[in-house]
Amino acid sequence: MEAAYYKEKGKFISGESKELKPKKGEVRLDVAYCGVCGTDVHIYHGTMDKRVDMPQVIGHEASAVVAEIGEGVTHVKVGDKVAVRPLKFGEPHKFDKGFPHVGKNLKFIGIDAPGAFQKSWTVPAYTLHQLPEKLSLQHGAFIEPLSVACHDVKIGRVKKGENCLVIGGGPIGTLISYVLKEKDANVIISEVNEKRVNMLSELGFTVINPAKENLVERISELTEGGMIDCAFEVSGSAAGVEAMTEVVNVRGRIVMVAIHGGEKRKVDLFKFFWSEIELLGARLYEEEDYDEAIRIAASSNIPFDKLTTKISKLEDIQDVFEEIDTNPAGMKYLIKCQPEERLA
Amino acid sequence: MEAAYYKEKGKFISGESKELKPKKGEVRLDVAYCGVCGTDVHIYHGTMDKRVDMPQVIGHEASAVVAEIGEGVTHVKVGDKVAVRPLKFGEPHKFDKGFPHVGKNLKFIGIDAPGAFQKSWTVPAYTLHQLPEKLSLQHGAFIEPLSVACHDVKIGRVKKGENCLVIGGGPIGTLISYVLKEKDANVIISEVNEKRVNMLSELGFTVINPAKENLVERISELTEGGMIDCAFEVSGSAAGVEAMTEVVNVRGRIVMVAIHGGEKRKVDLFKFFWSEIELLGARLYEEEDYDEAIRIAASSNIPFDKLTTKISKLEDIQDVFEEIDTNPAGMKYLIKCQPEERLA
Ligand SMILES: NC(=O)c1ccc[n+]([C@@H]2O[C@H](COP(=O)([O-])OP(=O)(O)OC[C@H]3O[C@@H](n4cnc5c(N)ncnc54)[C@H](O)[C@@H]3O)[C@@H](O)[C@H]2O)c1
Ligand SMILES: NC(=O)c1ccc[n+]([C@@H]2O[C@H](COP(=O)([O-])OP(=O)(O)OC[C@H]3O[C@@H](n4cnc5c(N)ncnc54)[C@H](O)[C@@H]3O)[C@@H](O)[C@H]2O)c1
Ligand SMILES: [Zn+2]
Ligand SMILES: [Zn+2]
Repeated sequence: MEAAYYKEKGKFISGESKELKPKKGEVRLDVAYCGVCGTDVHIYHGTMDKRVDMPQVIGHEASAVVAEIGEGVTHVKVGDKVAVRPLKFGEPHKFDKGFPHVGKNLKFIGIDAPGAFQKSWTVPAYTLHQLPEKLSLQHGAFIEPLSVACHDVKIGRVKKGENCLVIGGGPIGTLISYVLKEKDANVIISEVNEKRVNMLSELGFTVINPAKENLVERISELTEGGMIDCAFEVSGSAAGVEAMTEVVNVRGRIVMVAIHGGEKRKVDLFKFFWSEIELLGARLYEEEDYDEAIRIAASSNIPFDKLTTKISKLEDIQDVFEEIDTNPAGMKYLIKCQPEERLA
Repeated sequence: MEAAYYKEKGKFISGESKELKPKKGEVRLDVAYCGVCGTDVHIYHGTMDKRVDMPQVIGHEASAVVAEIGEGVTHVKVGDKVAVRPLKFGEPHKFDKGFPHVGKNLKFIGIDAPGAFQKSWTVPAYTLHQLPEKLSLQHGAFIEPLSVACHDVKIGRVKKGENCLVIGGGPIGTLISYVLKEKDANVIISEVNEKRVNMLSELGFTVINPAKENLVERISELTEGGMIDCAFEVSGSAAGVEAMTEVVNVRGRIVMVAIHGGEKRKVDLFKFFWSEIELLGARLYEEEDYDEAIRIAASSNIPFDKLTTKISKLEDIQDVFEEIDTNPAGMKYLIKCQPEERLA
């Protein structure tokens, strides 16, 4: 298979991966690995059909090798290993205040434009970040979600020694937890899925299952009454939103990572006033977050292999998405987008 | 009348104002003027009876003259004009992170301890801020709510030239608007009470009544699509909470000043993620906010007299509270706590 096209709710089809000649400022890539993101699963469930131009190649957590460079491209050369920051910036808009990653004219590559579940992919050169020699292409597929985590921790202004709670230990919450460890913060994870509770405990994290234990009491014990300096809401649940205001101390911060796309959530605004707490929205990443994610991925000991549930071939993508929907023990699924021998 | 005691829901009674000899670190004051705060009205309505030790003197927006000083007090002397910062700090607590004004052991003087609707009042010396010669005792009664406004604008990190929206043009929202003007921000006020809309318009503010006009559209016009950099929710209403997320641009801040004490409010958390907006809780003031409020009150042109609906004698306090409940045109009511001749 050359490319996996999302066709309609619940269905991928096989198709051609066009080798699009890179124009000025573009680069053509041989995609190596591409991780499956929760957003891809949403697309697969048909809930984002308005944004996707079906049939369309999706996927945005890619590592790749530079295959061909367009005019004026100087910061990468053919053969370089890269991670892709899948953001296409449009015209700056007054409303954006110089933050194109949340800008009015942002296009997300892999949703609003063709993605990485294919062999050959042509993207703007400014989306590319070099991977260091010691980082494998396989681990390079973690750079995109790890950049999300770096961005979130930056937004949370986390300092050494602070008590942090990550609500929701999915792929994003887990990577946030590792970035927090990197900042020498004290990390607690709240997670309701027992498979994930066990996995995260085995990885050495302090995990609380709020369905089984009183979260606030346990945190009070663990922090000797100090409670949480920075909480990350990464569960996307109403219960997570309720917990987030309960656990933080005076001047505590809450980083809103999860996408609460449905109905509005009930929030304890009294606590905001009473304890001067902060709610800080976080979306995607900026260039510097990619730089930091690559630095952390190369230098720290994040067990990417243990976080990788399965590595599958592009032709098996339909099975992978079906498995994700039914496997509570799953964490990160990777798709190989080149033939085996080219990834050796 | 020497002192007005809150007796029970809807009722003040007259009583003695004891001249309590100031102990070490305390000061006895002759209270001059004390403003009526919305919180006093809540107490009068009986909704805070759990916190108040009835019958109790309430009131906390006071100016005063130093009458007697206790041992070790050096920063004020007998005869000084002062404003009172009505916060009594207890033991610091780990949870407080060095912010006693939101601390676990904070007591609010005028709620948790006897207040200023009386002739003679003994308070900790550290609560006192000198009033400059050119600021009258009458205007000095505005320092407490003006400090709230200074604190809120500080929490909002407002910079020159930014577009700000104040949702709710009551006494606090109005003072926030003046502090914003002082910062050279562009101020828009949203207010539903037509009496207040008219008053604020006459004072020169741009005011929108969201019950009559489309708030978001009008703001878009006024800001040429830039929308709001910092919004202040000072209405305490569900509609204000809905508006606050709609009006801000990317990376916009919302300062939560209002006390949403009842049920939880529905909040658009998606917008937090999508536009990386911030919700910042604000409560009371810190020492430096009093210093700033006094500086602004003395140097700027806030028309305190126009904001003063009525100045009444202590013996008329019952009538004043009854009037506040029924007068939509009211803004700030002041109570004179000394006989006329002593305030000349
Ligand atoms: N801000 C961004 O730019 C960005 C980027 C990627 C993903 N996201 C969002 O982040 C969220 C997490 O992504 P993910 O891929 O890790 O998703 P996920 O669904 O795999 O993880 C969520 C986890 O939360 C757990 N959970 C559910 N209810 C809980 C509760 N009450 N308490 C504790 N845990 C609970 C679930 O069991 C699950 O493990 C999603 O909402 C996703 O859309 C945001
Ligand atoms: N953070 C703090 O430390 C602190 C200190 C003092 C007061 N407060 C709180 O600040 C809030 C305001 O205090 P105040 O004394 O000015 O009260 P207020 O009730 O006089 O003012 C609120 C104003 O909001 C207006 N309003 C109501 N719904 C509206 C809507 N949908 N859109 C626009 N305007 C609307 C009302 O007409 C009113 O004029 C209260 O909630 C109060 O408890 C907080
Ligand atoms: Zn993603
Ligand atoms: Zn008050």
